Amino acid sequence: MTGEHAKDGPADLVVEGCTALVHAQDGGIRFEEDRAVVVRDGAIEAVTSARDAARLPARERIDAQGRPAMPGLINCHTHTPMVALRGIAEDVPVEEWFNDWIWPIESNLTDEIVELGALLACAEMIRGGVTAFADHYFSMDRVAAAVVRSGLRANLGWAYFSSQGPEGRERSLDFALRTAGGAGGRITTSLAPHAPYTVEDADLAATAELAREHGLPVHLHAAESRAQTDSSLQQHGRTPIETLHRAGLLDVDVLIAHGTGIVERDLPVLQRGTGRIGIATAPKGYLKFGWDTTPIRALRSIGIPVGLATDGAASNNTLDVWESMTLTALVQKSTERDPRWLTARQALDHATTQSALATGLGERVGALAPGRRADLILVDLTGPHVRPLHDLATALVLSARSADVVTTIVDGRVLMRDRKLLTLDVEEIVSELARLLPELTDRGHGRRIQEYDAGLGGAG
Amino acid sequence: MTGEHAKDGPADLVVEGCTALVHAQDGGIRFEEDRAVVVRDGAIEAVTSARDAARLPARERIDAQGRPAMPGLINCHTHTPMVALRGIAEDVPVEEWFNDWIWPIESNLTDEIVELGALLACAEMIRGGVTAFADHYFSMDRVAAAVVRSGLRANLGWAYFSSQGPEGRERSLDFALRTAGGAGGRITTSLAPHAPYTVEDADLAATAELAREHGLPVHLHAAESRAQTDSSLQQHGRTPIETLHRAGLLDVDVLIAHGTGIVERDLPVLQRGTGRIGIATAPKGYLKFGWDTTPIRALRSIGIPVGLATDGAASNNTLDVWESMTLTALVQKSTERDPRWLTARQALDHATTQSALATGLGERVGALAPGRRADLILVDLTGPHVRPLHDLATALVLSARSADVVTTIVDGRVLMRDRKLLTLDVEEIVSELARLLPELTDRGHGRRIQEYDAGLGGAG
Repeated sequence: MTGEHAKDGPADLVVEGCTALVHAQDGGIRFEEDRAVVVRDGAIEAVTSARDAARLPARERIDAQGRPAMPGLINCHTHTPMVALRGIAEDVPVEEWFNDWIWPIESNLTDEIVELGALLACAEMIRGGVTAFADHYFSMDRVAAAVVRSGLRANLGWAYFSSQGPEGRERSLDFALRTAGGAGGRITTSLAPHAPYTVEDADLAATAELAREHGLPVHLHAAESRAQTDSSLQQHGRTPIETLHRAGLLDVDVLIAHGTGIVERDLPVLQRGTGRIGIATAPKGYLKFGWDTTPIRALRSIGIPVGLATDGAASNNTLDVWESMTLTALVQKSTERDPRWLTARQALDHATTQSALATGLGERVGALAPGRRADLILVDLTGPHVRPLHDLATALVLSARSADVVTTIVDGRVLMRDRKLLTLDVEEIVSELARLLPELTDRGHGRRIQEYDAGLGGAG
Repeated sequence: MTGEHAKDGPADLVVEGCTALVHAQDGGIRFEEDRAVVVRDGAIEAVTSARDAARLPARERIDAQGRPAMPGLINCHTHTPMVALRGIAEDVPVEEWFNDWIWPIESNLTDEIVELGALLACAEMIRGGVTAFADHYFSMDRVAAAVVRSGLRANLGWAYFSSQGPEGRERSLDFALRTAGGAGGRITTSLAPHAPYTVEDADLAATAELAREHGLPVHLHAAESRAQTDSSLQQHGRTPIETLHRAGLLDVDVLIAHGTGIVERDLPVLQRGTGRIGIATAPKGYLKFGWDTTPIRALRSIGIPVGLATDGAASNNTLDVWESMTLTALVQKSTERDPRWLTARQALDHATTQSALATGLGERVGALAPGRRADLILVDLTGPHVRPLHDLATALVLSARSADVVTTIVDGRVLMRDRKLLTLDVEEIVSELARLLPELTDRGHGRRIQEYDAGLGGAG
């Protein structure tokens, strides 16, 4: 046993015979063979030797068959219900994507569609080894219901625009306060202003004030693209990051989605922020829109954690965080023109420690260590596409894929075992959703929930 | 039946109830539901309605259950035995990758390692929906043996450097002549000089002459990176493509791997070539090395087909052509900074028609059409990551992945059915290979098969 005595009675779960991904004191990643993860009351009680664990009484045992066990992936920024729009708006610039497709369609959203979409998204994420996600959307009570039913962990924020008046912000606060701690503690919450280009400065400042008053984190989009930064500079003489600073949002705990438009002058501003600042990167969509990518190297150099994300499936086509991990390694090497940068081990660090930090879950998940919640996955590396195995970290990041995840566990509860989902029925969810798609995708009404202006750097 | 009467006796195979990807006369792609593919003597006899096919006698039937049926993927440039080196040399620039890792290790190659590597590669490709590949390597008799055993289709070329003396070229010719038509016609062959920077001009010219004399195509690396083009210009005053032109290699059938260093002045040179010129693009490795990518838009504008490839697993980590398809769509949008460019349908066109043309198989495979060889795959789209299905082409390119391929058929023979490999045993191959890895990966001898010089634009 590592660091503590076995408590009374049998453990709840023992995952035995795994190769455990563990974090050293200095943050480095190493793999330990023939290990076992002992789970009690939803937490990791110990990471011990398979031999010791064999003698340990347990209510449930999983034979890992030598497979790697690693912390579950965290989707640090998504809009789960948007899986309903997967693949509906392709090959268009972001202005058309928002104005002609997404925002007209989102004016048809119903609570039922949101919940079914969130359930389908949860099914996809469990199948892909995701154990927690940060969601930023509407009708969030329904997403919370999907979290309860699916068994996943989530940080949830109800999105708002200034165009909704103060009601938007109030609803976001009300949701955050009454939902925090839900699903047996698996739900945390955030205030969720949409972005500096859709939420006015005064609203952003009021949000920061509420965050401070209620001890809530904030989750929002900012500096999504370089074009946004350029037009913000042109119109207001400051970058979106400087707008966040001015509003006080860098002095509370804040999760910033994308940040591909973060520029040199933003770095000292971020560095001076007194809050826990994290960035979520979702590289697939940036490639599709022809954007720059998140400047991870610069952000790392000032100690800002960068977590992995998928954004919504309407832009990303999947909620595959594994794919985001692989793409992050590839795109960072390419963007920095440096094959030595962002190694497989660094990618795994983004997928574990940094994703946990970015979403404010840094002490609770993100590592296989005693005291952390028991959110872990087993990966099958017997397929021909990962053989032979010269280096495990490289195999995980550059050869394996989400379909190789065989078992997903959250809070010690097995949500997928040997690729079989245990909490959700995909066919049932999809057939209910299919019934509602015609009304969802109708754009004949000419409404949209908001307007995207490429030249709009901030709502001012 | 489409365009012909049923021949006497039962068909060999009917794949019924599929959604068929078919090519219109103008080259556009469309999907037809409730179709059946009728196979006789290894060829597609007809693509007909599922209803008509239900009445057709057949020796073997596969119920496609509504799944998409599409032409098998073609890996247009690989070095199959290099799967043995998968993940062994990471996070280094190309000079170190060649000089410190790959070329020292390749001086340990044995026929047995080559054959086991090729077999493992075939297993991986069959699992990923690849039905044909163009291989450029050493000990190619052993790769041919793997083609025979696996059931795949291949174009094979025995690689050579000028440093080997005339024997290299002669061996390549001898292999090409005696192996063409092997494996019941599934094997075609090419002459395979390594690249303009390792094969001298006189050798390239002699190769072109042999190609003309024997009616053989040529498969080689050229303009792999912009650095190669720049140093070729500096040293010889001409680009690698101009070197190929001078040697007469653009006036024979030639498959050029990579071409990320193809520049504006190369385009008219390529356009004036009288041979069938094709380019193979393997985008994953370019990202890893921090290179530019293949200029597909420029090549398409002058009518040069660009096929999809993986290169060897030592640089690409997988032989996953599906991943190459997805990455091609993403990276092309990003590189051209144009979200409208390289749509999902264009990506499917590269994966089918253009890959077949690039490898000289344009009349034999690449389409589900009567008279083509029966190389096809079935894709399962019931997973949560592809639901709901708004657009099939988009779902295939941007949501589905190689693990969704369930059935792979070559020459009418089923090589994988419901994800089960029918011709190869992965565990057996891997365990035999594992025994040989210590001698393969030993770099203590200080030898290497060749020298890479970043400043070497051509062997002169």
